[in-house]
Amino acid sequence: MTLDDFLHQESEWLKGTGPRSNIVMSSRTRLARNLEGLPYSHWADKKQLETILDSVRGAMDSVSFLKGSMFFRMKDLSDIDKVFLVERHLMSPEHTRSGEYKALIVDPKEIVSIMVNEEDHLRIQVLQSGFNIKETWRIIDEIDTALSKKLSFAYSPKWGYLTACPTNVGTGLRGSIMLHLPALVFTAQIERVLGATAKLGLNIRGFYGEGTEASGNLFQISNQVSMGRTEDDIIDNLERIIDQIVSREDSSRNTLISKNKEALTDRIWRAYGTLKSAHIITSRETVALLSAIRLGVDLGVFKDLNREMVTELFISTQPAHLQKLSGKILTAEERDVKRADLIREKLK
Amino acid sequence: MTLDDFLHQESEWLKGTGPRSNIVMSSRTRLARNLEGLPYSHWADKKQLETILDSVRGAMDSVSFLKGSMFFRMKDLSDIDKVFLVERHLMSPEHTRSGEYKALIVDPKEIVSIMVNEEDHLRIQVLQSGFNIKETWRIIDEIDTALSKKLSFAYSPKWGYLTACPTNVGTGLRGSIMLHLPALVFTAQIERVLGATAKLGLNIRGFYGEGTEASGNLFQISNQVSMGRTEDDIIDNLERIIDQIVSREDSSRNTLISKNKEALTDRIWRAYGTLKSAHIITSRETVALLSAIRLGVDLGVFKDLNREMVTELFISTQPAHLQKLSGKILTAEERDVKRADLIREKLK
Repeated sequence: MTLDDFLHQESEWLKGTGPRSNIVMSSRTRLARNLEGLPYSHWADKKQLETILDSVRGAMDSVSFLKGSMFFRMKDLSDIDKVFLVERHLMSPEHTRSGEYKALIVDPKEIVSIMVNEEDHLRIQVLQSGFNIKETWRIIDEIDTALSKKLSFAYSPKWGYLTACPTNVGTGLRGSIMLHLPALVFTAQIERVLGATAKLGLNIRGFYGEGTEASGNLFQISNQVSMGRTEDDIIDNLERIIDQIVSREDSSRNTLISKNKEALTDRIWRAYGTLKSAHIITSRETVALLSAIRLGVDLGVFKDLNREMVTELFISTQPAHLQKLSGKILTAEERDVKRADLIREKLK
Repeated sequence: MTLDDFLHQESEWLKGTGPRSNIVMSSRTRLARNLEGLPYSHWADKKQLETILDSVRGAMDSVSFLKGSMFFRMKDLSDIDKVFLVERHLMSPEHTRSGEYKALIVDPKEIVSIMVNEEDHLRIQVLQSGFNIKETWRIIDEIDTALSKKLSFAYSPKWGYLTACPTNVGTGLRGSIMLHLPALVFTAQIERVLGATAKLGLNIRGFYGEGTEASGNLFQISNQVSMGRTEDDIIDNLERIIDQIVSREDSSRNTLISKNKEALTDRIWRAYGTLKSAHIITSRETVALLSAIRLGVDLGVFKDLNREMVTELFISTQPAHLQKLSGKILTAEERDVKRADLIREKLK
């Protein structure tokens, strides 16, 4: 299996399956881990960084979940391939930069990925489609246990797992959930809901993680604190709050349908009409329109469209995906034309 | 024949045929005439107004162009029917108001219409599709000659034909041409072109005549002065200037195609996509989108669309037309839904 095979496979995070998948796009946990006796990646020298790479690579085979996984050195990947992996939510945007000693492990199903020598020596990530945060925790816990039999992780009885950034010390755990909240946006309740969520100690981020804006009515919500609580507590708390947001979105959708059906239908169909007809379209506009269409699919507006088609367009219209599909580097203007071509072809 | 038969007939002014019909929608002349020895309509009493009505009605038969024409007293028409006649450019918006002694004569082909007791006793109008201003003058001159054998028009050897408003004194002639100028608007040249046109002594008006804004890139251009020149001079001058504007629009279209084809195609197709998909749409947005589609038809962008279809939508989506087609009075909100339904049905 190679990286290019992912092109013809749905990202786990956008698959559109699993519990509450009409509102919850995907669930993810990640664990930050560092090898005992070695400086954090930013302070380690070349030899130490190579040691970290070798150690992690050597431990891979002991993890049943990583059977058949690929190991990429970042320096061996093209710029497009790196962005491609970010677009598939398999690694962070930061991991694309100065990659001499950075690596990525990915399992063929794109459920598990491990960034090596990002901020921490290991950033283990598990993705599941839909509202499945408990399952991601179950899997990542198993992987962590298996790896810790081969690797000695930096751990303090007082502080817990030690990490490069103090906000991750303790469990090193971050659970995050990608939500599609078009009705809360449409009814202008989103600010209030997100404000309340922030007060409960959760972080809200956009489409591509930290530092990015929300687009396409997609919001990524995660725990802020990873210390002073057990992993189960963190996951339970996150799950409980998300459950409330999901209910709010759900009832907003019902209100929209009963009180504002024509305006809603109009907006959804116009989004479809524009996607089906445009000859030039940016990534941002595409995501916004696909959000409306996804809502339309969820509400049964369309007969011939399903969530998978929408998902496929979400993924394949991203810049690096487009360029890999075209087999060449494209300027932003060329991408906007190519994107429109692709969408029209798929919606024909 | 009744008024409702017009519903299933194309308005002459939007037919989309005739010379330069890719740019010139229609040509129109009108003559203002008043009966000698009677005050202008606004100052006339009931008996005098009835006398005017009777005289004009009695003279109708002597005009071969008016054979089979209908004679409507405004007081006998519903509000919707009156607006319907305005939408078909067969009478002015002013003619819908306080209509006790107002009447309208219309020939079945909608080429000739005569408003009786508008500002002047007679406002004779001749419409032709496309760039056909000379032909409208030829026809109206013939009608004027025939009528003047039965009716004695107020005329001063010094001033010419006498009219209620001094701006019409002299020939009483106004020639006007409806132009579709999307490329001049798109390339932001329109202000300059219209400014130059105004300096040459022509008036520029919007979609429904005096006092209305331009919409759908449609501009109505007419002569300002009707005195001190012969009718032939007025028509020649108008024709010459319009010819220049048409050339400018033409070359702008060519420039757009060669330099900006993708952006243009994108805009045209998006207009189509929106019309084909919207579930709520205002009259104003409809006209703007249809303008883009008409340009698309002219430039050969569409395979399955022709100018007639666009024309039919232009006409049938107007408020009174929509209500007559629905057979009932509709609120503005209901019309916006009905309009969208009708457009989707036609573009299916």
